[in-house]
Amino acid sequence: MKIHGRHYRTIWVAADGWSVEVIDQTKLPFAFETKRLASAEEAAEAIKSMVVRGAPLIGATGAYGLCMALRVDASDEALERAYEMLVKTRPTAINLKWALDEMVAAVRNQPKDRRVAAAYARAAKLCDDDVATNEAIGRHGLTLIEAVAAKKGHVNVLTHCNAGWLACVDWGTALAPIYMAHDKGIPIHVWVDETRPRNQGGSLTAYELGAHGVKHAIIADNAGGHYMQHGEVDLCIVGTDRTTASGDVANKIGTYLKALAAHDNRVPFYVALPSSTIDWTIADGVNEIEIEERSGREITHVQGRTPKGEVMTVELTAPGSPARNPAFDVTPARLVTGLITERGVAAASREGLLKLFPERRS
Amino acid sequence: MKIHGRHYRTIWVAADGWSVEVIDQTKLPFAFETKRLASAEEAAEAIKSMVVRGAPLIGATGAYGLCMALRVDASDEALERAYEMLVKTRPTAINLKWALDEMVAAVRNQPKDRRVAAAYARAAKLCDDDVATNEAIGRHGLTLIEAVAAKKGHVNVLTHCNAGWLACVDWGTALAPIYMAHDKGIPIHVWVDETRPRNQGGSLTAYELGAHGVKHAIIADNAGGHYMQHGEVDLCIVGTDRTTASGDVANKIGTYLKALAAHDNRVPFYVALPSSTIDWTIADGVNEIEIEERSGREITHVQGRTPKGEVMTVELTAPGSPARNPAFDVTPARLVTGLITERGVAAASREGLLKLFPERRS
Repeated sequence: MKIHGRHYRTIWVAADGWSVEVIDQTKLPFAFETKRLASAEEAAEAIKSMVVRGAPLIGATGAYGLCMALRVDASDEALERAYEMLVKTRPTAINLKWALDEMVAAVRNQPKDRRVAAAYARAAKLCDDDVATNEAIGRHGLTLIEAVAAKKGHVNVLTHCNAGWLACVDWGTALAPIYMAHDKGIPIHVWVDETRPRNQGGSLTAYELGAHGVKHAIIADNAGGHYMQHGEVDLCIVGTDRTTASGDVANKIGTYLKALAAHDNRVPFYVALPSSTIDWTIADGVNEIEIEERSGREITHVQGRTPKGEVMTVELTAPGSPARNPAFDVTPARLVTGLITERGVAAASREGLLKLFPERRS
Repeated sequence: MKIHGRHYRTIWVAADGWSVEVIDQTKLPFAFETKRLASAEEAAEAIKSMVVRGAPLIGATGAYGLCMALRVDASDEALERAYEMLVKTRPTAINLKWALDEMVAAVRNQPKDRRVAAAYARAAKLCDDDVATNEAIGRHGLTLIEAVAAKKGHVNVLTHCNAGWLACVDWGTALAPIYMAHDKGIPIHVWVDETRPRNQGGSLTAYELGAHGVKHAIIADNAGGHYMQHGEVDLCIVGTDRTTASGDVANKIGTYLKALAAHDNRVPFYVALPSSTIDWTIADGVNEIEIEERSGREITHVQGRTPKGEVMTVELTAPGSPARNPAFDVTPARLVTGLITERGVAAASREGLLKLFPERRS
């Protein structure tokens, strides 16, 4: 997507043809800086320190890490060492493991002298596939936005957290249709939930939209219901970390509250997702998906920029105040209007999903 | 209420018998400091600079400001000058004007040499009446908590914003039943919504509960729905700024979202209020109550304490990110289980309210 007029992906091979460059996301939203990663170790460090974040981008960074390891030593042992080092950087990131497994499969049966080229080719395809998937999600979501625009002349979308291109290689999931609508000249405005406690909306989503030139306003997570009551939201589009076979949606904490408000005010509530995040083994999301509990410090402390431009962590609450911090919640399928996948928009139900993914019928 | 074992009100006449002391709420939650106000001008300044906040407490501070003005000069002209100066400090605070009008009515027909004594007596009664009202709200709310405790042995309450004693002279409204339950030995735990953007929950409510010894945890405003889905909330109790004659409730932004989640999970949702905040002239809260929009800077900037102990404002979002900030929302009566007033618990409906306030039947 565009940063003030110039097109970027979140990761790309540098001019030298072998090292990679990424956007240093730890500096956002206060500064836009790119960072060169010139070894598997530097790729691992970038994942660990959240220079890169978002499942698809972590996978892509891991993949290029493996490329750079093979460039130094293309032996089986070196491949295995690099795999182990990279996969450990974010043990719960399923997508990272998947990407590294794909890489290993692509090079393992190649003679040593072809492994580097095969690896770079596979990593590039992995990135291009992510872009293509998100582009397809964007096109299907765009038709929903166009339908509103045809009726009203302009569109107000509410989104929660960051399901944008910064988490992917390009486009994003929930934001892809928004970028396409904007690029087509549809007057679109986005309500950006701040998304406490980690503020991914207020920092990353608002940054993305602003840099691309999409009109938006950051709002407290508390405010969406009020705007829906007053007709100021035409549709909601959010991302998801995991969707069950019956259409329940696990996403950033607070998504459920917005879905309730949308339902109460007859505002369509859509979830955008690559089908790779559908968990076909689970039906009842509320009872079967375990919710990660993160540190209470994310509630009691926050990072911001001082008037002097220094980025600093400050404490918001009384010293010793206890806090609890569930990171995700589950929105039951009954509150979801539709699931925007790369194959089209599915009803949030087993039948709806199976219509688009008939190969999953058992 | 208690601050680490010692009983406080939020305002009291000092040992000298004429000046007043207050808790400096601009220092909370980082420090507990009291401040002496020794003139009408100092009382006005305390209101303006939010050393004191909350409708009843602002009214009480204004009342004592008038007392101190009369002590210097008990003439009609001085009374009028002090009234004008004090009433202008927070022009939208209805309760401040009401308290000052009460004071003027109490002294106007008194001879000059009795005005000071009459004023102090009226101000003291104004404070005592606030305490008595909140105590009655607390007693009625306590029966709801006791009913849960009788069934389950322990009680989890969720609250939003600060409807505690720091906003009143003592007890608070939504928190009064919680303090009473705690003081009776009922095992009670409170989920404290952080309450973005001004964080009154994370700072003031958590401070109050912690200082009094009530178990609690601060949560992101996003998290309440998740806890309700998983049976970890037995009831919600919130305050209100204005309740309509039909039981619609205007309260801090985000209240509506919690009421929706409570309704979806069959968690009782109660609103605690002194009957003085019922607006008998309005029926349809969503469409008739105008919602104050505050500065977007409350979203994009936040005050916290640096590691060195300095209280500082930091920017959370990209420079220039636009933000919108509606301060309140309206929860329709259909989502409210009951209204806890000083006369008892009313159904959230015209009929329910008129049963407790028959003098309002027209």
